[in-house]
Order: sequence, then structure tokens, then C-alpha cells
Amino acid sequence: MPKATAETWMARALTLARRGLYTTDPNPRVGCVLVKQRRIVGEGFHARAGEPHAEVHALRAAGDAARGATAYVTLEPCSHHGRTGPCAEALVAAGVKRVVVAMQDPNPQVAGRGLTILREAGVEVECGLMEEQAQALNPGFILRMTRQRPLVRLKMATSLDGRTAMRSGESQWITGPRARTEVQRLRARSSAVISGVESIIFDNSRLTVRASQLDLDDAEAIASRQPLRVIVDSRLRLPQAAACLREPGRTLVATCSHDAERRSRLEAAGAEVLVLASGIDGRVDLQALLRYLANQEQANEVLVETGATLAGAMLDAELVDEIQLFMAPTLLGGEARPLFSLPGLETMAQQRALDILDIRAVGRDWRITARPQRRA
Amino acid sequence: MPKATAETWMARALTLARRGLYTTDPNPRVGCVLVKQRRIVGEGFHARAGEPHAEVHALRAAGDAARGATAYVTLEPCSHHGRTGPCAEALVAAGVKRVVVAMQDPNPQVAGRGLTILREAGVEVECGLMEEQAQALNPGFILRMTRQRPLVRLKMATSLDGRTAMRSGESQWITGPRARTEVQRLRARSSAVISGVESIIFDNSRLTVRASQLDLDDAEAIASRQPLRVIVDSRLRLPQAAACLREPGRTLVATCSHDAERRSRLEAAGAEVLVLASGIDGRVDLQALLRYLANQEQANEVLVETGATLAGAMLDAELVDEIQLFMAPTLLGGEARPLFSLPGLETMAQQRALDILDIRAVGRDWRITARPQRRA
Repeated sequence: MPKATAETWMARALTLARRGLYTTDPNPRVGCVLVKQRRIVGEGFHARAGEPHAEVHALRAAGDAARGATAYVTLEPCSHHGRTGPCAEALVAAGVKRVVVAMQDPNPQVAGRGLTILREAGVEVECGLMEEQAQALNPGFILRMTRQRPLVRLKMATSLDGRTAMRSGESQWITGPRARTEVQRLRARSSAVISGVESIIFDNSRLTVRASQLDLDDAEAIASRQPLRVIVDSRLRLPQAAACLREPGRTLVATCSHDAERRSRLEAAGAEVLVLASGIDGRVDLQALLRYLANQEQANEVLVETGATLAGAMLDAELVDEIQLFMAPTLLGGEARPLFSLPGLETMAQQRALDILDIRAVGRDWRITARPQRRA
Repeated sequence: MPKATAETWMARALTLARRGLYTTDPNPRVGCVLVKQRRIVGEGFHARAGEPHAEVHALRAAGDAARGATAYVTLEPCSHHGRTGPCAEALVAAGVKRVVVAMQDPNPQVAGRGLTILREAGVEVECGLMEEQAQALNPGFILRMTRQRPLVRLKMATSLDGRTAMRSGESQWITGPRARTEVQRLRARSSAVISGVESIIFDNSRLTVRASQLDLDDAEAIASRQPLRVIVDSRLRLPQAAACLREPGRTLVATCSHDAERRSRLEAAGAEVLVLASGIDGRVDLQALLRYLANQEQANEVLVETGATLAGAMLDAELVDEIQLFMAPTLLGGEARPLFSLPGLETMAQQRALDILDIRAVGRDWRITARPQRRA
């Protein structure tokens, strides 16, 4: 076996952090490993907001062995007195000798403070080891901290010829059960799920995380936190009987309508109604909605599951960070519904280029991860 | 190095056969290896119709060493007195002791005759080693021999959202140069290239193999044989000025029109005109066209390069054996032209299922190989 290096320990911390993938929201996923004399003496990860941070779990596991150890942490230890006390101080108090962190706190207001506490207490500090991998754990959290918006992940299920439904709207099911499980996991890691009112009216989607479909050991615990459901509904057309209003968790209807009657009817049915400014097209200002979700709802990652109109509008406004396309080995024909409505796209010069980051088999379907290129 | 087995030698013979991929048409691709005392004493492949068969090349290379050798051949040696004399007899005359063939001659009228000649002359014969790989070398030749039709390969270039061109018809270029090179190679291995008259009118495609775009060592020799160009043109609308009529090689216009004036105008411009029965839709009977190409033109593999209407019609008639989709990382939007026009496909139950056999990167694009499932 090759000798363990700093990368070995940080990789272990990253693996631990990933165990919080579906549960830490709105907090970041963080892992920590305490190493002394080439042995792990304690490790931990942050599991859930309100519960101890990764460093605290690792320190508890190590006990006295923490003294003189090196801590490998995927994110800069916190410096604030939150629900669990500043981790930087806890590391100092435990006598940790050296701290290696993968990345600084992304919040520019506090970045470096945790490291300063450590340095001032005489702890050796190193920062930046496997930084890229650490950033990949918390893409939405980082965007929220640095740019006051969430990561927007657009998920669509399509046939090989780029169709999401028959002309009638019938679409169940294009993709197979393995793909649907992956969609459930995408929901489970998200702070919010956004859909257009048209899609909700047609499919009566619940937009919930279902434990039975996650195919994960801790599915029940994961599904106990439901992502915020957000319905983009410029004219407040959501039916009171919509299935999503009867599910556990909250449903936020984002509108630019001031129709008080419709509003109170929806509120009576259990919805929260958010009135936003309208964009130049007379519809909900999507950028304002995302800003609201980041700032008021602490949304890190949002999953957009919708039809061609809203998907096209988000793409057109350059609000999409990542596309998750589940492509089924089937053809629905030229009359079926398109993936993206992109009005005004008339010439090849206007085409919307993407970077395809990954294509992999998911049961009989294929999952394509793509990133829209920013327009020049 | 592991000890060479019968599979080792047959694999070598298959590799040799592949060197004829672009040139043997209308003959099959065949390779042969002569082995004595665990050494190759001669090898060869069939390069071009009218030139010696693989066995003859291998025997010539081996000279006297062929006596007592084992021959590994990817296809049953021929038994007929064609331009080069029966290979089965040549193997006997050279004193070959044992012959291992991957597959019998696919023509049911002659299958087994070559093996019988060998057996009757006292040569040990074995048949079926790596048969599947040998069949994969000549899928069109096998279909022509067994079912009097060519292999139909449908090639399309598409955006990620399943669009082949803008609404205006503009499409150059969706895919990049590497994908276009692969399309050139698909043309080069084909006996014929089929297109619909609409596509020709819009793009003025030449449908030729261009040596400069093949990116192969023997590109000039390959491009010296041009696949037959076939334009499906039910009403004889092909313009006399069409670029494909001025290229080396033949252009066949398949029609069900009896308009003598248009016909003679096209013939004057260099086209050959084939009048076929019309199908129930009043257009060229595509099945009859394919039968004609197999029986009268010895077409093994045909490449269909066309738009949504003809592509959809061929798919609908279950005439497509293989789809080659070159998918570019770009979006063209819901107004752009579809991949397949499939009129009558209205419900999910009618969707056309495919088997995706392969997805691989080709430059910035992705090449998807799929096979339509037959309807129940």
C-alpha cells in the first residue's frame, strides 16, 4: 500500500463530507479527519443544521488523542458563535497542532477569520489542498455566499429526438425507474424545486422527495426534509386542488399578480404567495425570484423541473448553471413537445452552445450533464 | 506474452479483412492468415473487386511454406470460377492441411460448397470461430445475400435538443470537423448514399467521398470509388443544375413520376432515372427501391442522409437497420427542424423504442449508434 499523504487524509474528509449531501441544507457539506502519527484518531462530518459541525464530531471521537494531531477539514473552520460554538476555537482548545483546510469560507465577509483564530493561537495552518474537489461539494452554497443567488440545475427527461412529451402533454414515462431514482436524489440534495404552473396543471406533480424511490440507506431521514416547492405562476392560475399543496413541506407560489381573491384562495389551500415584480415580458422576474430564494430562503441549490417555456426563459436569461438531461432510447416524433422554447432563435449564429461535461448510462437511459456557455 | 491460440490467428485475419473496409465493394471484406509451427507464413486480405481474394494473397506470400499449414479465413473460401478461380481449390493445391473459417458463405445457394471441396480433398475443416465478429465485418453483404436487401444506415446531425436545422433550413455546420470526417468514412464504406430531393434542393449536397476529408492514409484510392448517389424524387423535381450531377460517379434519381420531359431533361444533365411503383402514399415505394439497389446494383450498405420527412418515412416503414446520430453540444430551440417526422404518432404507447448500442465522443460532438426496435 502506498504511503498515506496529506491528499489521502483530505480525500477521506471529502468522502465523509459527501455523507451530508442530502441533509446539511442550508449548511454546507463538511468533513473532518484528525490524524496523529499516521493514524486517524477521529473523524466526522456535518449531518444536519443545528447538529454539531464536522470538527466537533471528529474532536469528540478523538478525545485526548486530538492533542498534537493534524486536522484535515474540507472547509475553513467557523469563527462565529452559532448554535455550536466556533470550531476554530474548539480545535485550539483540543490542542490540535496543525490544520489543513481545502478552501476558505466562501462568504467574503468572514473568509479567513477562522484561519486567523488558529494562527493567532499558534496552530500551523495550510489552505487550498484539493480545493477544487471541496468546491464541487458545495457549488450552491458558494454561489449563495459570493453572489447572492443559488445554483440553478435544470433537469429534463427527453427522447433521443429531443421531445419531453406528446403533443397532448402525455409524458409518463419517457425515462425508466433508474433515471427517476436519480431525479429523486437531485430533488433530495436541493433546497428548492421550481416548476412552472403549466407543468403542475398538466402533470399534477407533487415535487416531493419520496423515501421509497431514493434507493438509499437513510432514505427516511432524507425525505423528512422536503425541499421548498416553488411554482412560477405569473397569473395565479394554480388550482387549489393541486396535489403539491397537500404534501408535507412548504409550497411557495411566485407571482406578479395582485389578484387578492386568487391569492387568498391559494393561501387557504396551504400555499405561501410571493409577489414579485414582473419582467419586461409581463411574467415573474426570474432573477428576482432566485435572489429571493438565496437571500430569504437560504437556498443553495435549486432544481428546475418544468416544460419548454419556463426552461427556455431561464436559459435565455442565462440563469441556468447546469443541465441534467435524462435521455431515453426512444423517438416521439416531430409533433411532440420540444425541450426548449427559445423564441427569436432563428439563425445558426444564434445557437446556444453548451459544454457537455458527462454522459453516462442510467439503466436503459443516458444522463447528460451540460453547462450552457455564456454569450459573448 | 501469452501463447497464441486459434483466436489469435483469426483475430489477425479479421484485422486484415478490415483493411478492405472502404474498397472491396460490392465484394465482402475478407482476411486470411496461414500459420505453420506457430508462425505466420503468409497473410492477405481482399482489397478490391477484380483483384485476388484474401486466400490467394496469403498463399502467394507463403509460397512453399503453405504446405502443411493451417489457414484462418474470415469467410468460407469461394467455390466458384469467378475472376480469380475458386479459393477452396487453391488452398487444396497448395497443400494446406487445415482450414478454420469464421463463417459460411451467407448466400444460402452456395453456403458450404467451399468447405465441401476442402473436406473432399482431405483437408481438416472447422467453421464458426469468432463468427459474430466476422459477421460484423459484412453486415450489408450478408443482408443482400440472405434477404435481397442492403443494410440501411441512417445518419443524422443534430443538436442536443433534437434539431437538424433552423426553421429556414440553415444547418451548416451543426457538428464539427471530426464528426464530418466520420460521416465521410460512413459514405466511403457504403455502396450507395440515399437522399431526399428536398434536402438536395436546399443544401445542394454533392453526396461524394472527398479524399481530403477522410483523414486516412489511402484516401485517394478510397475516393476513386464513389458510392452510387440515389435521390428519392417522387415528382422529378431535382434541378438540372444540382451539384451532385456534376461529380464523378453515378447519380440515380428514383421516382414514380412518368413525366417524360422532366426525365429526359435530368438524363441530359447526367442523371439515370429509375421509375418505381408508388407506395400507398403516392411516393416512391422505398422497399422496392432498396430491393432494386440490392439486386441490380449489388448494394451492400446504403447510407441515408436526409431530412425529417424521408427519415421518418424510412423509420416508419421499418427499413432502418442502424441510426448514426452525431449530436452537437448546442441548442437550436423549439422552432428549429425536427429529426424525424412521424405522422400519426400521438400517444406514448406508440413511441418508437430504440436500442442504444454505443455513445462516444467525436471531437466536441457525440456519436450515438442506435438500432430501432421492431414493432411487436
